[in-house]
Amino acid sequence: MSERREVAVVGGATVKFGVRATTWPELAQEAGLGLFRAVPALAAEDVDSLFVGAAEPERFAFQSHVAPLAAEQMGLTPHRILQRTELACASGQSAIRSAYAAIASGLSDVAVAVGVEKMNLPSMAEANTAMACVMDRPWDGVHGATAPPFFAMVAQRHMLEYGTTEEQLAAVSEKNHRFANANPSAQFHEKTFPRDKLLRLPLVAPPLRLGDCSSMTDGAAAVVLTHSGLVRRFTDSPAWIRGTGQYSDFHNLANAGSLTDWVGLRRASAEAFRSARITAADLDLAELHDCFTISEIVEYEALGLCPSGEGGRFVADGRSDRGGDLVVNPRGGLLGCGHPLGATGIAQAVEVFEQFAQKVDPRRQVPDPHWALVHNLSGSANVHSLMVYERGG
Amino acid sequence: MSERREVAVVGGATVKFGVRATTWPELAQEAGLGLFRAVPALAAEDVDSLFVGAAEPERFAFQSHVAPLAAEQMGLTPHRILQRTELACASGQSAIRSAYAAIASGLSDVAVAVGVEKMNLPSMAEANTAMACVMDRPWDGVHGATAPPFFAMVAQRHMLEYGTTEEQLAAVSEKNHRFANANPSAQFHEKTFPRDKLLRLPLVAPPLRLGDCSSMTDGAAAVVLTHSGLVRRFTDSPAWIRGTGQYSDFHNLANAGSLTDWVGLRRASAEAFRSARITAADLDLAELHDCFTISEIVEYEALGLCPSGEGGRFVADGRSDRGGDLVVNPRGGLLGCGHPLGATGIAQAVEVFEQFAQKVDPRRQVPDPHWALVHNLSGSANVHSLMVYERGG
Repeated sequence: MSERREVAVVGGATVKFGVRATTWPELAQEAGLGLFRAVPALAAEDVDSLFVGAAEPERFAFQSHVAPLAAEQMGLTPHRILQRTELACASGQSAIRSAYAAIASGLSDVAVAVGVEKMNLPSMAEANTAMACVMDRPWDGVHGATAPPFFAMVAQRHMLEYGTTEEQLAAVSEKNHRFANANPSAQFHEKTFPRDKLLRLPLVAPPLRLGDCSSMTDGAAAVVLTHSGLVRRFTDSPAWIRGTGQYSDFHNLANAGSLTDWVGLRRASAEAFRSARITAADLDLAELHDCFTISEIVEYEALGLCPSGEGGRFVADGRSDRGGDLVVNPRGGLLGCGHPLGATGIAQAVEVFEQFAQKVDPRRQVPDPHWALVHNLSGSANVHSLMVYERGG
Repeated sequence: MSERREVAVVGGATVKFGVRATTWPELAQEAGLGLFRAVPALAAEDVDSLFVGAAEPERFAFQSHVAPLAAEQMGLTPHRILQRTELACASGQSAIRSAYAAIASGLSDVAVAVGVEKMNLPSMAEANTAMACVMDRPWDGVHGATAPPFFAMVAQRHMLEYGTTEEQLAAVSEKNHRFANANPSAQFHEKTFPRDKLLRLPLVAPPLRLGDCSSMTDGAAAVVLTHSGLVRRFTDSPAWIRGTGQYSDFHNLANAGSLTDWVGLRRASAEAFRSARITAADLDLAELHDCFTISEIVEYEALGLCPSGEGGRFVADGRSDRGGDLVVNPRGGLLGCGHPLGATGIAQAVEVFEQFAQKVDPRRQVPDPHWALVHNLSGSANVHSLMVYERGG
């Protein structure tokens, strides 16, 4: 039987997210430079494996085979494992999970997971084609079922079933953009989406307005992971990976179940909590996939943070804010930081590491956090991916 | 410390490779049906994880987020790990390596690795764009440095340095197309490229002719892997994974070293043999990445099967054929089977499994094989990926 090695994130860095006048390779390089600056004890020769999270460089950056490209840009020569992982909006977390498995199995000792996405192009027509590829293209994508209309349907249905209001959606946006104020890597800030104007912003897909939607963003982030035998070489405050869960129950929208009860997330989180031997009530902070405001509300419910239908009230009552039950998206979320697909999952892990080290801006620091959850959905919320972290010391 | 679980391939299936009038999802489905037919003891509920090897569905099939798409088509609901891995021409092997790490670590018990590529499109202009994305696009790809001219340069240089001849290149083509005759899944056969006409076929990139090049192919293949505790449930002839090695030393061609001495392959194979505790001399069969005839010749040398410069003579003397030192590419290779990028590495593993079970066509069966090597290169031979298998019984 397996005596799995314990694995921790021992450092990380995030580039400035936004509309960046840089290429895909430059973003990878910038994340690498940031990582080596953030982890002074790390030398390039220490890194035996590299996992690259990237959703669609083939369409966004006209570049495939990005794993060796990232390695070259970061000054790494992986000699154990090198690969790119893709799971659309969860590509970054997939890279971390791969690094986790590689180190836990003993196939790798020190691995870097880097996430990169360059989404803004001179012509956004190509970018829109790329986004339509994420859904089941012949059945759903070509009929216009991209992310905004899908999540708008979720919101409409949640309003119908539970009386969720536009004000409750706006409460998610207000919270996450407020946290983004305190995150220098974030693309947006409170002044981009002032709280008193959220309900008057243009509609993207009713009822979702501009402030309810994450954006097409250029960004990159990197973390380094190792096993218990080497952790202390790199940090005094490791973020231990204690649990993981994923679930996929459909792809074609015709096979979807309830729009408002994400059964896949219930299953994936049950496995994540089981493997970490905790419950949702133990969490001090959670980085949840708020690609749209409604997503975060449905996620509260599927994670068991509140009963079904009460997610809107949960955020409006401040229970996912500082001073509440737990803090959700202190980084600023996808709404505040932007959503460079492959980078998001890695940037969330960087946030967990820095929160545990208690070195983020005091306006977003969670007091003395011990357990953290990271969640990404992908596609039409048909796949859910989660990791549970425990603070070491 | 880690007591890694032992992992084996316990079954597999390959669809008919060629120019197929089927879509990407249909190819995934066909591979899944083949797998369940080939492994009668396998139930969909047994499979906790799915790893999808696919190089460029975003460009070839206008589809991203292919992992849940493949899961749906194969009737699987992965509840541990689901992801797609990409490493251009080595994407399939990357999926197997990921499954290996996941099972070895205990994160998965039974995993499927499926490789799918649909490369033939009504207009091949899009397919050519896709292939140009594999190289460093702004520096190399846009200047025409795609695969055929790159490997033509390797061949020219090898001829200049060592006196390698067109006849020796043709000997690789003849051998692999002859083996493909005995493989019903292969795209090409000896009669497509008759041995007495090989040196008169049209030039693709001098000195490489049509018979020296693998092709754009539609195909899919799947394997199932598990740990020692469950192997006997599925097969009496497991193919144990005993070693793995990868190396990446450059991406931009300006950073390449020798064209004819593939240092990355020397390093990756040293690691693969070290981890398996064997030497090249122990191998009974090898599935080598013969994307072009010259590749197989350079690979003999970097693997240490013969001294530098003697790869041409090695094949011409029949030392990589039945009755020689070992049998290279009994499946028919990429030259004979075609090269559906993400499927190739999986189809090679299926061949190893079936060779060990001694159930392939007698014209390609290696007598009583015990050790097998699978090799894939990707890009401009800048990344090398290897796995070593041992026959169980």
